[in-house]
Amino acid sequence: MVGMETQLASTPDTASTSPAKRTGGRSALVLAAVRTAVEELIKERGPERVTVPMIAERAGVNPTSIYRRWGDLPTLINEIATYRLDPERPLPQSGDLRGDLTAWAREIIEHYSTAVNAALLRAGAATAGESESDCLRNRRAEATMFVARTPNPPVTADQVIDHLVAPIIYRVIFLPWSIDGTTADRLVAELFDRA
Amino acid sequence: MVGMETQLASTPDTASTSPAKRTGGRSALVLAAVRTAVEELIKERGPERVTVPMIAERAGVNPTSIYRRWGDLPTLINEIATYRLDPERPLPQSGDLRGDLTAWAREIIEHYSTAVNAALLRAGAATAGESESDCLRNRRAEATMFVARTPNPPVTADQVIDHLVAPIIYRVIFLPWSIDGTTADRLVAELFDRA
Repeated sequence: MVGMETQLASTPDTASTSPAKRTGGRSALVLAAVRTAVEELIKERGPERVTVPMIAERAGVNPTSIYRRWGDLPTLINEIATYRLDPERPLPQSGDLRGDLTAWAREIIEHYSTAVNAALLRAGAATAGESESDCLRNRRAEATMFVARTPNPPVTADQVIDHLVAPIIYRVIFLPWSIDGTTADRLVAELFDRA
Repeated sequence: MVGMETQLASTPDTASTSPAKRTGGRSALVLAAVRTAVEELIKERGPERVTVPMIAERAGVNPTSIYRRWGDLPTLINEIATYRLDPERPLPQSGDLRGDLTAWAREIIEHYSTAVNAALLRAGAATAGESESDCLRNRRAEATMFVARTPNPPVTADQVIDHLVAPIIYRVIFLPWSIDGTTADRLVAELFDRA
């Protein structure tokens, strides 16, 4: 699981792929303060009750700086959410598709088992639908990679999305209390037993 | 598919099960005006940019009336959303579980193919997680009923939720452009071919 420290430490690398948002010195401090403020406020109040002025006050920055950098609150929340599961993290690579997908599903479930991550996912859902969120695009790229590197894969990437990622995300959003230590293994078994 | 007229016409019946919210005369008119205002504003601005004062202005009612009746915006949106797929509507009943689930999945997809219904679902997702939304509890009750009335069902109600409802809702929220006329049949085939 990616903790707060890891995310902050990895910020310069992640940001270096996006020159318009290069972060260094004061800018990196502002980003870290805003991210912490968003995460705390979402946890305390729920995503639908957080406003830009609240975030600015908590982070000790001017609201104008937030509007200038992110445009609006949905964009800000979506960008913060994309930092959560580092797309550069090492992925399971046992050589066995079923084993790798099980480890990967367990990691996603563990990631969303924290209240802040689940709240960020719900906030992202509210603003989704026009373009795929970076966060879910990364999961889809990972599913595609797992399947593509397997000779004669018994499942397609779309089936991994529909029968492994979708039920996890659905339960995280709507039925978080129904997820337990057996969920990842059960879903992978149901995905493969249909092949 | 449940249209606007059907929902409004069915309001007295639905409301009669909840005495605290009995509607008649002026109260029913206010409910209809507020519902229309919420739906229009969500469609125009996206769910995260709608406020109670905006809804009050559009509906021609005092914001205080809205706060008194619903408490806050998330509660209001969730209640409006629960009116969308009437739980009293007739369900497919061909005697064949696979056929019934296919017709049911097509109906859910058609329901969420309109922009307002999809936006209400996303707004509901943002406020979910503490208790199951009425809307999804109804779908779960329906899945349970389909399976329970089938002798020796090849799938469980949980599998219907994970492998049919979850991928539909996931795609409606995050990948609406990926849903087409083949989605319901494909997902049902994948659900049953694993049995």
